[in-house]
Amino acid sequence: MKKIALLLVLVSNCLLAQIQRVEPPFWYAGMHNPELQILFYGKNIAQNDVSVSHNIPILEVKRTENPNYLFVTIDTQKATAQELLFTFSKDKKVAFTQKYALKQRRPNSAQRKSYDASDMIYLIMSDRFANGNPKNDSNPTVIEKANRSNPGGRHGGDIAGMIQNLDYLKELGVTTLWPTPLCEDNDKAYSYHTYGQSDVYKIDPRFGTNEEYVQLSAQLHQRDMKLIMDYVTNHWGIQHWMMNDLPTKDWINQFETYTGTTHKRTTVHDINASKIDYETCFNGWFVPSMPDLNQTNPLVLNYLTQNAIWWIEYANVDGFRVDTYSYCDKDGIAKWTKAITNEYPNFNIVGEIWMQDQAQMAFWQKNSKIGAIQNFNSNLPSVMDFVLLTALQSVFNENEATWDKGMMKIYDNLANDFLYPNPNSLLIFAENHDTDRFNETYKNDFKKYQMAMTLVATLRGIPQLYYGSEIGMAGNKSKGGDAAIRQDFPGGWKGDTNNAFLKSGRTPEQAQYFDFTAKLFQWRKTNEAVHFGKTTHYIPENNVYVYFRYTAQKTVMVVVNNSDKNQTVKTKRFQENIQNFNTGTDVLTGKSVDLKTDMNIDSKSVLLLELN
Amino acid sequence: MKKIALLLVLVSNCLLAQIQRVEPPFWYAGMHNPELQILFYGKNIAQNDVSVSHNIPILEVKRTENPNYLFVTIDTQKATAQELLFTFSKDKKVAFTQKYALKQRRPNSAQRKSYDASDMIYLIMSDRFANGNPKNDSNPTVIEKANRSNPGGRHGGDIAGMIQNLDYLKELGVTTLWPTPLCEDNDKAYSYHTYGQSDVYKIDPRFGTNEEYVQLSAQLHQRDMKLIMDYVTNHWGIQHWMMNDLPTKDWINQFETYTGTTHKRTTVHDINASKIDYETCFNGWFVPSMPDLNQTNPLVLNYLTQNAIWWIEYANVDGFRVDTYSYCDKDGIAKWTKAITNEYPNFNIVGEIWMQDQAQMAFWQKNSKIGAIQNFNSNLPSVMDFVLLTALQSVFNENEATWDKGMMKIYDNLANDFLYPNPNSLLIFAENHDTDRFNETYKNDFKKYQMAMTLVATLRGIPQLYYGSEIGMAGNKSKGGDAAIRQDFPGGWKGDTNNAFLKSGRTPEQAQYFDFTAKLFQWRKTNEAVHFGKTTHYIPENNVYVYFRYTAQKTVMVVVNNSDKNQTVKTKRFQENIQNFNTGTDVLTGKSVDLKTDMNIDSKSVLLLELN
Repeated sequence: MKKIALLLVLVSNCLLAQIQRVEPPFWYAGMHNPELQILFYGKNIAQNDVSVSHNIPILEVKRTENPNYLFVTIDTQKATAQELLFTFSKDKKVAFTQKYALKQRRPNSAQRKSYDASDMIYLIMSDRFANGNPKNDSNPTVIEKANRSNPGGRHGGDIAGMIQNLDYLKELGVTTLWPTPLCEDNDKAYSYHTYGQSDVYKIDPRFGTNEEYVQLSAQLHQRDMKLIMDYVTNHWGIQHWMMNDLPTKDWINQFETYTGTTHKRTTVHDINASKIDYETCFNGWFVPSMPDLNQTNPLVLNYLTQNAIWWIEYANVDGFRVDTYSYCDKDGIAKWTKAITNEYPNFNIVGEIWMQDQAQMAFWQKNSKIGAIQNFNSNLPSVMDFVLLTALQSVFNENEATWDKGMMKIYDNLANDFLYPNPNSLLIFAENHDTDRFNETYKNDFKKYQMAMTLVATLRGIPQLYYGSEIGMAGNKSKGGDAAIRQDFPGGWKGDTNNAFLKSGRTPEQAQYFDFTAKLFQWRKTNEAVHFGKTTHYIPENNVYVYFRYTAQKTVMVVVNNSDKNQTVKTKRFQENIQNFNTGTDVLTGKSVDLKTDMNIDSKSVLLLELN
Repeated sequence: MKKIALLLVLVSNCLLAQIQRVEPPFWYAGMHNPELQILFYGKNIAQNDVSVSHNIPILEVKRTENPNYLFVTIDTQKATAQELLFTFSKDKKVAFTQKYALKQRRPNSAQRKSYDASDMIYLIMSDRFANGNPKNDSNPTVIEKANRSNPGGRHGGDIAGMIQNLDYLKELGVTTLWPTPLCEDNDKAYSYHTYGQSDVYKIDPRFGTNEEYVQLSAQLHQRDMKLIMDYVTNHWGIQHWMMNDLPTKDWINQFETYTGTTHKRTTVHDINASKIDYETCFNGWFVPSMPDLNQTNPLVLNYLTQNAIWWIEYANVDGFRVDTYSYCDKDGIAKWTKAITNEYPNFNIVGEIWMQDQAQMAFWQKNSKIGAIQNFNSNLPSVMDFVLLTALQSVFNENEATWDKGMMKIYDNLANDFLYPNPNSLLIFAENHDTDRFNETYKNDFKKYQMAMTLVATLRGIPQLYYGSEIGMAGNKSKGGDAAIRQDFPGGWKGDTNNAFLKSGRTPEQAQYFDFTAKLFQWRKTNEAVHFGKTTHYIPENNVYVYFRYTAQKTVMVVVNNSDKNQTVKTKRFQENIQNFNTGTDVLTGKSVDLKTDMNIDSKSVLLLELN
């Protein structure tokens, strides 16, 4: 008996060893789309037939040119949460088996709410926020080790650090956390940004574990906050495990010699574009270390779709931000987006659509009439308002009002809102991890920060802040490159002399920034008019921009004097919105302002009035 | 008998004296729209009843608050070309009568062809081109007299001058003449531009007579050329005869105090715009001397519509250019445009849509999907490509290629063509009577002129030149104002020492400009690929822009090297368009270029190749 038992164990081990990867590693019962395509990876696995327990129908067994892959599609429609057993047979003899779990979904998982214009998103460069667990800074399974003295190296920021500082974020008025990607990026160097992932089912050990990521989500939810996952559909890292043994040659876009993208995303809709320019833009690689995924290959697309859904379900994620969205094959990414929002109808996804033309941006929003010109519907609920960003990056240095300078730039931005199917789903921001830092551009001029943040807090759209600006962080990208705009948050590392996470640890200047920002965004939480209200704005005069956000219940009036002179504003002009209101209470100072007489406003300042 | 006869004559004169104006002064039988609304103007004319001969039905007799107007709408459906008699009666007694002619239309009048992308339009500032008839320079019926020494005064250019130089234009390759407005502008000063008209049924006597205008049209047609009328729907001049005795108060847009337009035409589609900003933009006046017409008043709209149709029919006009199109009430101007194109289905109308955003421009083109976002259809076949203009005004000084400088600007312009329902109906131009002069901007750099004109001649759209540039005319608008860009064409005035109309009179530099321009546009006439062919363009590299225009029969390749270095262009990249062609013949030099090897092109130069 003992010998037989030993033999069985050996055989079993041997059989198990045949399978090196199963992806998704498990799944959920009761999904809207009952089809699940499981990737089995192992030496010559394609030689086997496959069957599955529990009378689960196998819809397709897909083999590729690489015998080490089997893609098995099952129908989970009638499946309950249970453990399935896949049996792989050769010549009608069982070769080996593989357990596969179908898990129970959380209640109302499909109907989960997501982020929207009532939220405030806080973007963290994950390696640079807080090192909550110094023990995971380096890890034997990944190449690059921590080196905080290297501006482009791993500094040790992690999920534990985020969790430890959630109360700080809550105090600031943050409702939604967007950390840059957390999945494993095993590049040899410069891996900290984590946009070149080597395993998309695994949190990078230097950030923590899959379980810690689930914990981050749960801790956010406990505080009535939300988690955005930064998802990358366009490319993986060159160290991705699949790159050594591709399922199909066209899993990634390949050229005779290395070919980078032209970045000319306009070819997507350009009726005059040459085919070669179109293909080079979308199939060319971002950088040599990031193989460009081929979303026209249904296996690839399905892999990406299931991976995304797996994370939502597994980590209870509230929304996505999608990196380099418009670099993907447009029909592929539209299908991916549709598949996800089919599973989660309320799920918000914001795509990085980095264009300087509103029609081009609007092309990419769900149900766009501009996309429809070319029979395209991205299904993407939200796009990032890079045109507004560009205006915010220069406008506060323009003291004089002209036809297209100063506050006219902001006005002109909103004048094209009709192009968007849903302007209130634009992500609006004054900076992010790829742009100049606001406080650097404006040399820490606090008045300009106040104007900008008030705009971000009260214009239509979903406001997004970038970590550190709320304590005045700057950093010169043109001198220091990306590292300069991705510095460590002070207080995130043991031994930091300046700890801005704590009230007691802030310098007076940091406190000034923080207190203003927290006051503004705490107030923002309370006022539905700036979440979902209508906007009426007025042509700027003397570089003073006035607009209103309002619902039937509440009216907010914003007056931004971007000129370097004190100004008098004639309130009569705004009668359409002031109506019977007599006074406004300045949210920032508590002072009352008479609406029936002309209004005085200091140079480079803002009035944020709740009308009474 | 004698006494009775004398009495009849006296009575008859007296009766006739009751009517001071009849507009339109006559009409045509057999129009598509059988309804004709005739304005009768005379002291207390509204006290009368009115009837008409020949059993013509009167559909409506409209009285306004001003008793001096009667608007009588008749149904001409069954009317033949004949003289009608209107009888005005009071207390059932005939008060007076008025003859009214319904004339015969020209054969195929309704189906007249119009200008399109196969044409080349030449824009003339009418007062500044040629003084063919010095006797009409001043006229007792209008206030401002000729004064050629006044840069902003009347210089004497006229219709006779245009007619005398049609062969010059023909030699240049012009197919279509666009003179600035010719109707009477009786402003006291600065009337030469004629955009503030005082009588829209009458050619300004300083330009000539109505009959001479008809002759201009006929002379153009004899040469197989076309006539564009510059029509102004937005405003009249303050000296317009109606301004002293308005039919209705709301014939023009009036305010408590003078109110100028804000020029913020974006309010037309801005969902965030305040009502007051919208109204001030479209109802505010252009300048105090130009009363703003109220196109929401059906009487006004009908007046403008009939006046436009009257000129087409009377002078056999081939197309319109409409001034300040987007300053009009949008629904009114859309109806006006529709009414005209209903009468003349092939009639082209280009609107002055001066925006710097292609979506905003596309909003205004007929059947725009962008207009449709707001349920708007302008019915306007053509818009002016001011975005391309802006690029052309700066691009040739940008020697270095960057993401958004140099030829990339032109490329980026065409990358948005999908926004337009019909990009080939854009009017494209490097300058006009309101902009800087091209040759001034570029300091008469002939190479830059060559590049620009080749683009204008070969890009999609309808090319338009501005008088004088073809002989190198410049003029500094920032110093000299409008007068600097509207100088007299040399040779247009008796005694001009330099006569650029004649080959023998041109300076060597003028000859260089003229010969190149004529060669280019004479060639353009012959090549359908640049009229109606498809476009394929390639992302500029090293500031070299390459594009193709092609039909099934012909292919044209254009290579513009805007860098200040000689460049080698790898032809392999263009295989999609070069296909099996082996060589290209340079239209400008006659030289043959091998397409199978790399191509060399000098700095700041252009190759215009017909592929063989």
